[in-house]
Amino acid sequence: MIEDNDLSVFEKILGKNNVLTEDLDPYNTDFLHIYKGSSKCALFPTSSEEVSAILRHCYSRNLAVVPQSGNTGLVGGSVPVYDEVVLSLKKLNKNFEFDPRTGSVECDAGVILEEANNRLAPEGYTMPWDTGSKGSCLLGGNVATGVGGARMLRYGSLHNHITGLKVVLADKNGSVVNFGSKMKKDNTNLHMHHLFIGSEGQLGVVTGISMCAVPKPSCVQVAMLGVNTYSECRDILQLARLHLGEILSAFEFIDGASMRCLDENKKLRSVLTSNPSFNVLVETMGSNEAHDKEKMDNFLKEALNKGLAVDGVQAANAQEAAYMWKLRNILPIAALPDGFLCEHDIALPLEYFYEIADILRQRLGTMATRVISFGHMAEGDNHINISAKIYSNELMAKIYPFLCEWTIEHGGSISAEHGIGQERRTYAQIGKGYQVDLARQLKRQFDPKCILSPYKMIDAFAS
Amino acid sequence: MIEDNDLSVFEKILGKNNVLTEDLDPYNTDFLHIYKGSSKCALFPTSSEEVSAILRHCYSRNLAVVPQSGNTGLVGGSVPVYDEVVLSLKKLNKNFEFDPRTGSVECDAGVILEEANNRLAPEGYTMPWDTGSKGSCLLGGNVATGVGGARMLRYGSLHNHITGLKVVLADKNGSVVNFGSKMKKDNTNLHMHHLFIGSEGQLGVVTGISMCAVPKPSCVQVAMLGVNTYSECRDILQLARLHLGEILSAFEFIDGASMRCLDENKKLRSVLTSNPSFNVLVETMGSNEAHDKEKMDNFLKEALNKGLAVDGVQAANAQEAAYMWKLRNILPIAALPDGFLCEHDIALPLEYFYEIADILRQRLGTMATRVISFGHMAEGDNHINISAKIYSNELMAKIYPFLCEWTIEHGGSISAEHGIGQERRTYAQIGKGYQVDLARQLKRQFDPKCILSPYKMIDAFAS
Repeated sequence: MIEDNDLSVFEKILGKNNVLTEDLDPYNTDFLHIYKGSSKCALFPTSSEEVSAILRHCYSRNLAVVPQSGNTGLVGGSVPVYDEVVLSLKKLNKNFEFDPRTGSVECDAGVILEEANNRLAPEGYTMPWDTGSKGSCLLGGNVATGVGGARMLRYGSLHNHITGLKVVLADKNGSVVNFGSKMKKDNTNLHMHHLFIGSEGQLGVVTGISMCAVPKPSCVQVAMLGVNTYSECRDILQLARLHLGEILSAFEFIDGASMRCLDENKKLRSVLTSNPSFNVLVETMGSNEAHDKEKMDNFLKEALNKGLAVDGVQAANAQEAAYMWKLRNILPIAALPDGFLCEHDIALPLEYFYEIADILRQRLGTMATRVISFGHMAEGDNHINISAKIYSNELMAKIYPFLCEWTIEHGGSISAEHGIGQERRTYAQIGKGYQVDLARQLKRQFDPKCILSPYKMIDAFAS
Repeated sequence: MIEDNDLSVFEKILGKNNVLTEDLDPYNTDFLHIYKGSSKCALFPTSSEEVSAILRHCYSRNLAVVPQSGNTGLVGGSVPVYDEVVLSLKKLNKNFEFDPRTGSVECDAGVILEEANNRLAPEGYTMPWDTGSKGSCLLGGNVATGVGGARMLRYGSLHNHITGLKVVLADKNGSVVNFGSKMKKDNTNLHMHHLFIGSEGQLGVVTGISMCAVPKPSCVQVAMLGVNTYSECRDILQLARLHLGEILSAFEFIDGASMRCLDENKKLRSVLTSNPSFNVLVETMGSNEAHDKEKMDNFLKEALNKGLAVDGVQAANAQEAAYMWKLRNILPIAALPDGFLCEHDIALPLEYFYEIADILRQRLGTMATRVISFGHMAEGDNHINISAKIYSNELMAKIYPFLCEWTIEHGGSISAEHGIGQERRTYAQIGKGYQVDLARQLKRQFDPKCILSPYKMIDAFAS
């Protein structure tokens, strides 16, 4: 437990203004207000050296620490479970170097995603990932979460963009280590920086990022299609890959139940008049407007002519495009007004992608107000949300562990992009076998006293 | 040392036909005939279970093992240094599952790269990486090497494509572990499979691969440009990114000395008549021929109109394109006829990319027959080759460690894509600091007795 002397040490390292011991609610409580810790202290380092000094002290005193970025995570990973020290990366945001000739970026981990985009835009570049929380999430948190999002289809995963990471370890020395480099090709050691992508702060604290930005697309197009069957949604995805090829940047799936939920709970009307059973949102990002328009036209014509789509609307301007994205992006909270919301984000091979929604509807019957399914279909990423009037153990027992076991049995992952955190901890080991032990060994190597973000993804002290 | 009893055990596991104890030269000698080990035995498992049984036995007997794929590596990483058992993955190639609706591939590590392409082509897909040795290199070796190559510019690195790996560890149980999954999005554990990409067989033996193939481009275009100065080569790269955007698939740099070497040693004439100081080969891969042609036309016109290129030729057909690539691809061996060839493959930030060639020319003077520089310029990957009449310690002492130290000082990597193996081992630690110790700890975790590929990238027994 933290003592006065610890606070003095922290104040000596950081200055009084960067040690918070009151009004800690925003740091103890997660974004969805599901998880609440009881930390007595939040620290705001402004450099890797300060992070190092903090971790050195916490190591020597056996104090648990939870690294926190924008605190926008959805699985309770960035808040304390008990009284862990909150190590906020918010103020570690001074450095942002950018080379407009190559797109390479070297920056502090506390830079806000949107701010990175704002800095890159005048130079004709953009960040290769995007997420709903871009206005407050931090790049270091993006890395630790292994953020997915919609643009992954166009630009690939974080593993494709991050070339190096500066990480502070919670070891005896608070070691500051530069993993990887700023070069895209570097085969001079184990590619260790990839271990920290998606690590949820279990192995070390990411304080600096070397990465590649991508040229800002000069043309962005958005369209929505109405579809009768899930099988035809798959056909349309194949058609989109064929016609839109290298400019296809998003293929979002929204089932009819999701659209009804938007209508009933949010008074948001679909842009399609046919009230279709399924909706897909298709986006392109390219470098040549005339070419991109022709590709989109050909795609839409063929989808309609072949009868795969029963309805279709293309956004005529940025405002219409924004409305289509609003429909999609508000879905994670659209069922909240029903009373209780159980959110889950799984990935499944496409042949099983939608089956689970129907299975859950049958299984839960009238216990659920609704089961809605939407997500980044091209990657099999299915956000499956179940709402009810109130929380009940009976409902949850019908959902879990069934949903996780079914997903693993069908070759999927029980957390596509949200991560494990506190929320999925109970199920994280299903089907994993020896991997779980190896992760635990890695944890102990990098964080010998296991003081980083305990009681979450890795159960470091299990036998 | 291997005893008769070990051979009996191996024969029991694999059958007599898959244990070779004679004519071992091809397995003891590397591709460039620089390194030669003295192994007494090469093993040819056909399944992960057999690999597991072999490693279990080698662990119990403290026998060192070198995993070997196509043996096409350029740094002596895949051959024994002394009498290590050669574990060839050649025959582990039965399984190749492919889903044409998503492009996902699950296959054995012993599949030849070209064969994978041949299987994918009829379904409209292709592998997202390419390399000169495609006719004999194996996918598992590509993963272990962290292969780069020209297509990385278009499709990204291996870290972008590989979603899961089956690995056999050299531990007590010969543990067979499935890291990652076949899903592109899987945030349910540490992303451990990335640790094996570029690991040079130091941590485990990759026996199975889950990955995503990419749609085969319907249009490929190649052009060569003559350029007066290196600075203008950089300008042309920026112009290519702007005009060719998402279809730019290669930007290869060839200096004048390289082109002269092709002429003198290989009787291969440039396609450009102006005998320029620098040459760039530009390739596009796209999905719409009319669009791609227009983009290439615009790019070439502007490069010439702006005076950045002094000369330019576009390949009119596949044959001409193949000839342009032949010029580039034969360069690694073009200086061999000079007598002695010192090959190096570094990555450098673009501002220093070419400086090193001129510095080496000055430094080596008449000791070198020639210094040629060519490579994947977009990633800063510079293949810098020095030839002389004969090998001399004096020449090598002028090159090393200077070349490595200069590269690190200028923010580069001393091995862009070839790796460390035996060749770069002496210099692998320059500028790495604590990373080297961490790699060693990882090595010991996954390979407790350090029997995998000793005396190479990781010096496991250093203090």
